[in-house]
Amino acid sequence: MVYCDGESLKEKIKTFSNFGDTGNGGITRLSLSPEALEARQEFVRRMETLGLTVVSDDMANLYATLPGTEDLPAILSGSHIDSVKRGGNYDGVLGVLSAMEAVETIIREKIPHKHPITVVIWTNEEGARFEPAMMSSGVICGKFKKEEMLASEAKDIAGYTFGDALGKSGFCGDMANRISAENCAAYVELHAEQGPVLDMERIDIGVVEGVVGMINYELVFQGQADHAGTTPMKYRKDALWAAAKGLEYLHEKLEQLDEELVYTTGKISASPNIHTVIPGEVRFTIDARHKSGEVLRQVVEIIEDIPKKLEGCSVSTAPAWTRNTVSFSDRLVHVVAKTAAKLGYTSRRMYSGAGHDAQYICSLVPTTMIFVPSDKGHSHCELEYTPSENCEKGVNVLVNTLLEIDSIL
Amino acid sequence: MVYCDGESLKEKIKTFSNFGDTGNGGITRLSLSPEALEARQEFVRRMETLGLTVVSDDMANLYATLPGTEDLPAILSGSHIDSVKRGGNYDGVLGVLSAMEAVETIIREKIPHKHPITVVIWTNEEGARFEPAMMSSGVICGKFKKEEMLASEAKDIAGYTFGDALGKSGFCGDMANRISAENCAAYVELHAEQGPVLDMERIDIGVVEGVVGMINYELVFQGQADHAGTTPMKYRKDALWAAAKGLEYLHEKLEQLDEELVYTTGKISASPNIHTVIPGEVRFTIDARHKSGEVLRQVVEIIEDIPKKLEGCSVSTAPAWTRNTVSFSDRLVHVVAKTAAKLGYTSRRMYSGAGHDAQYICSLVPTTMIFVPSDKGHSHCELEYTPSENCEKGVNVLVNTLLEIDSIL
Repeated sequence: MVYCDGESLKEKIKTFSNFGDTGNGGITRLSLSPEALEARQEFVRRMETLGLTVVSDDMANLYATLPGTEDLPAILSGSHIDSVKRGGNYDGVLGVLSAMEAVETIIREKIPHKHPITVVIWTNEEGARFEPAMMSSGVICGKFKKEEMLASEAKDIAGYTFGDALGKSGFCGDMANRISAENCAAYVELHAEQGPVLDMERIDIGVVEGVVGMINYELVFQGQADHAGTTPMKYRKDALWAAAKGLEYLHEKLEQLDEELVYTTGKISASPNIHTVIPGEVRFTIDARHKSGEVLRQVVEIIEDIPKKLEGCSVSTAPAWTRNTVSFSDRLVHVVAKTAAKLGYTSRRMYSGAGHDAQYICSLVPTTMIFVPSDKGHSHCELEYTPSENCEKGVNVLVNTLLEIDSIL
Repeated sequence: MVYCDGESLKEKIKTFSNFGDTGNGGITRLSLSPEALEARQEFVRRMETLGLTVVSDDMANLYATLPGTEDLPAILSGSHIDSVKRGGNYDGVLGVLSAMEAVETIIREKIPHKHPITVVIWTNEEGARFEPAMMSSGVICGKFKKEEMLASEAKDIAGYTFGDALGKSGFCGDMANRISAENCAAYVELHAEQGPVLDMERIDIGVVEGVVGMINYELVFQGQADHAGTTPMKYRKDALWAAAKGLEYLHEKLEQLDEELVYTTGKISASPNIHTVIPGEVRFTIDARHKSGEVLRQVVEIIEDIPKKLEGCSVSTAPAWTRNTVSFSDRLVHVVAKTAAKLGYTSRRMYSGAGHDAQYICSLVPTTMIFVPSDKGHSHCELEYTPSENCEKGVNVLVNTLLEIDSIL
């Protein structure tokens, strides 16, 4: 087995945390912002110093390639370097730094490999400034139309589009540089878990089998807005009370389905939302995620079967959107699991509940992901943290996985 | 018994509904707005035509007085003519038009009375443009400081105060014209119920014994905002789920207290309120009203005894405000009940769940109120409606009550 240099990895994490430093332990590094461009320049400088060739495609996805001993498609690894507002120093960037560290280890240890190894930075994964998330991996995988993406307007500056930011970035390259099923053999993305499972269960490595499917519904409870002081309880049609009963109904049914199912009511609004008026209308969302399409079908059935009348109020449901489960390459998943075991690390198979560029890339080439723990599950906040020893273990799994893929493909 | 002229009353309701007509069956007649001033001018014109003397006090409360046969304090009746935005044609103004109709009846029927009878318009009852509600009756009863009220800023024009509107209105008179315990013997206010009880129970007249006391609390449920996709159910601290359980706890306990208790959660907010994030914090209000201070004390006990931990979230409670029950003059309440019975109308005793100028005036002089039904309980909306025959019955009770008070005081 090969081992990375933990100190070198720590230095990378420390240095890149300066680009967009909020001063509170986190970063704000929106896609193609000055801070993100600085981080990209640092990436290019370091990769070129190591002798890699750096190119970008027409969505500013950035590829740094270490040649292999044979003329084969590349093995790809990386992630994104953009963050949400006041995000952390691990989400995304850790996958890029880990791939850089893996390549550095291979060079330092002079390990021969047949395939070129490419470190990638995907542009605008977060969608925090320009929607949607996973924009550029989505474009090259045909999930989004490029022209529509170029017109995506910034949330912070009216009239300023993703296309404008791309043009000014200096990183807009040639469409021919996009990865494809022909020039790319496999993709492995290391990422912080963004959830509490590995941390709570004290497990080193998450062997990611795919990204769970999800459904999202909006429920509307329609009652009658009336005066809080003059309307006896028996004459009320209180939409909030109906919504509370509806939420309870859903939880009671859903908790019986499957232990791995997650369901969330994250958004609620009451109308008119005045303390002295009985709510006439309440709306809430319900988001449910599970790897099994059958379980999600049952969730939809439960949501749609909610009583159409609760506490005198009418209840209606409408699907907002749905996303199918994405399963990664069995063969690559197996390589990750085996590699972790060989290194003596504890691991568990799991599905990602969050979205990642890998979920699009896997439609193009065999793909998998490696998760490292997130302290207390914190994510998309300045508290986000993965201890150095966990990052190091992650890179050790990554570099050995890349080399194993090189040998078996 | 004396009977009013139903057609004359209808004409008044129709005419006054023109001042601020929204074109949708309702009115927008904010306090001291051009529409409200037009209505006041119409009031003055009509009262002076009937030979009444009209004066205003320093809060623009407007008094039209029909002299009595003796030098006694006046018997007062009226209400307010301002409305909320897109309000109805009955709330407030019906009490003024009924008092006008009562005086017209007394004049037409040449009924002798010892006391002067004064029709009053209170300024800014709704507080819809300048807060607080019941501002001017509050000032003359010492509930609010006049200087603070004059500085109350309009919700629609920055920098424009109630004092500005008062100065421009042409209705700002002499402080010496305020009513007092010396110059006023009694106050009777007719009002639409603003609730469904009389309508649902098909009762003609509400004999109002007072205004219920209320308590208002805010509850805060503090959990942990986490990713909806990556956080297993068992690791969640879902503040909305805790709030739903909290609401259920309160309803279960409160519904056992007393049939006449009303309690309402009208306002709720979740944070960050994003469909893909588990709510980290939820706040809701609870408003409870009852005539008995002892029942309200038990409500407070129930609210404060809510478990301090629900579904892994901390729960805290804070009182927002409280208002004591106001009881009207037993003697006058009895006169209203007896008068309704003599007229052959069905009636029931009740407390008002909404606030009225009468609740302040009763601290100055013996006071009571007469309620007429509100169709389906609609109030503070354009749907607000009281059938003509109910208005007429209300005025018949009012005029005979005023005459009975005249004879017994």
